[in-house]
Amino acid sequence: MANATGGPEIEQLIQLLSRLPGLGPRSGRRAVLHLIKKKEQLMIPLAAALDRAVAAVKVCDACGNIDTVSPCTICADPRRAETGLLIVVEDVADLWALERAGIGQVRYHVLGGVLSPLDGVGPDDLSIDKLLKRAPDYSEIVLAVNATVEGQTTAHYITDRLAGSGVTITRLAHGVPVGGELDYLDEGTLSQALKARTKF
Amino acid sequence: MANATGGPEIEQLIQLLSRLPGLGPRSGRRAVLHLIKKKEQLMIPLAAALDRAVAAVKVCDACGNIDTVSPCTICADPRRAETGLLIVVEDVADLWALERAGIGQVRYHVLGGVLSPLDGVGPDDLSIDKLLKRAPDYSEIVLAVNATVEGQTTAHYITDRLAGSGVTITRLAHGVPVGGELDYLDEGTLSQALKARTKF
Ligand SMILES: [Zn+2]
Ligand SMILES: [Zn+2]
Repeated sequence: MANATGGPEIEQLIQLLSRLPGLGPRSGRRAVLHLIKKKEQLMIPLAAALDRAVAAVKVCDACGNIDTVSPCTICADPRRAETGLLIVVEDVADLWALERAGIGQVRYHVLGGVLSPLDGVGPDDLSIDKLLKRAPDYSEIVLAVNATVEGQTTAHYITDRLAGSGVTITRLAHGVPVGGELDYLDEGTLSQALKARTKF
Repeated sequence: MANATGGPEIEQLIQLLSRLPGLGPRSGRRAVLHLIKKKEQLMIPLAAALDRAVAAVKVCDACGNIDTVSPCTICADPRRAETGLLIVVEDVADLWALERAGIGQVRYHVLGGVLSPLDGVGPDDLSIDKLLKRAPDYSEIVLAVNATVEGQTTAHYITDRLAGSGVTITRLAHGVPVGGELDYLDEGTLSQALKARTKF
């Protein structure tokens, strides 16, 4: 098949962009053509922003959040400790969704996934040991995992491991649709679900 | 609204990625988190590929194709002149689609759009003067513009401008669905449409 188009630099850029979630080979090509068309306004700023982000991005050693400092801005803010609430989420997208919902002065713990024996994800693959170490510093742990089978299995596992620690464990109120994913919910629903949280 | 997530480097990266076709604010955030998760395998290579592409990418002075050399690989290849065919396309995505279809040893001319008075796109905004200068070097000009109203208006305009030049003007055979866009067609349809091209 003849394909004399673009050259290796462009071909490689298409292949890498095609691997972003939501893009494929065809939309990857469109994205690259768009970038080249908007070279000054988009392509060059994006290249610079990526370089800066590569250099700056850090995973918070305490909570797993992504920031440019570690401990992250949330972990370093003493006001965040006042409510005594530690919100456990599956990934950073959920943390960002809750922050956008403006749920207040809380801290987070990012598990980095959920237990999934079929996918070979066990407790050691998640940030559970760190959570157990942090738990005594908080008065309440909210298990804000997705309302999926794996999410709920993970919530039960964490509850078992925290048994006897004396810390109150709650979960988000129903309001999170069954089978739904946190990151897809609107901000009002997320706020309501936190306010009406129930004992686990 | 509280939003202590990520820091300015990440926020800017999200905003720039959100401007790619097919992505929005939400998928832009997902893309950035995916990049950060795959920092070594994806984020760093993408940053490097973008830097290389920014430095290397050139728009071909002759035909408007995108390549790392100008004249582009297609314009510089003497075998491409043998058929005497010049394929006129709206944009580089269409050129790439035809090349993927393996339509043979042809040259291209990228218009850079179509005439669209409502959007303020006139003949001077397209690469039409260059096309008129190249036309005498070819035995046949195939107007492979989209089967949209604007595409057909543009084809008629070009045909008028080439009147009396003696060059044969053809268009792609029907087979291109009415109202359809070239870049969405499968390779077989594109090949067939070229083979059965008709006089304009
Ligand atoms: Zn943190
Ligand atoms: Zn060229």
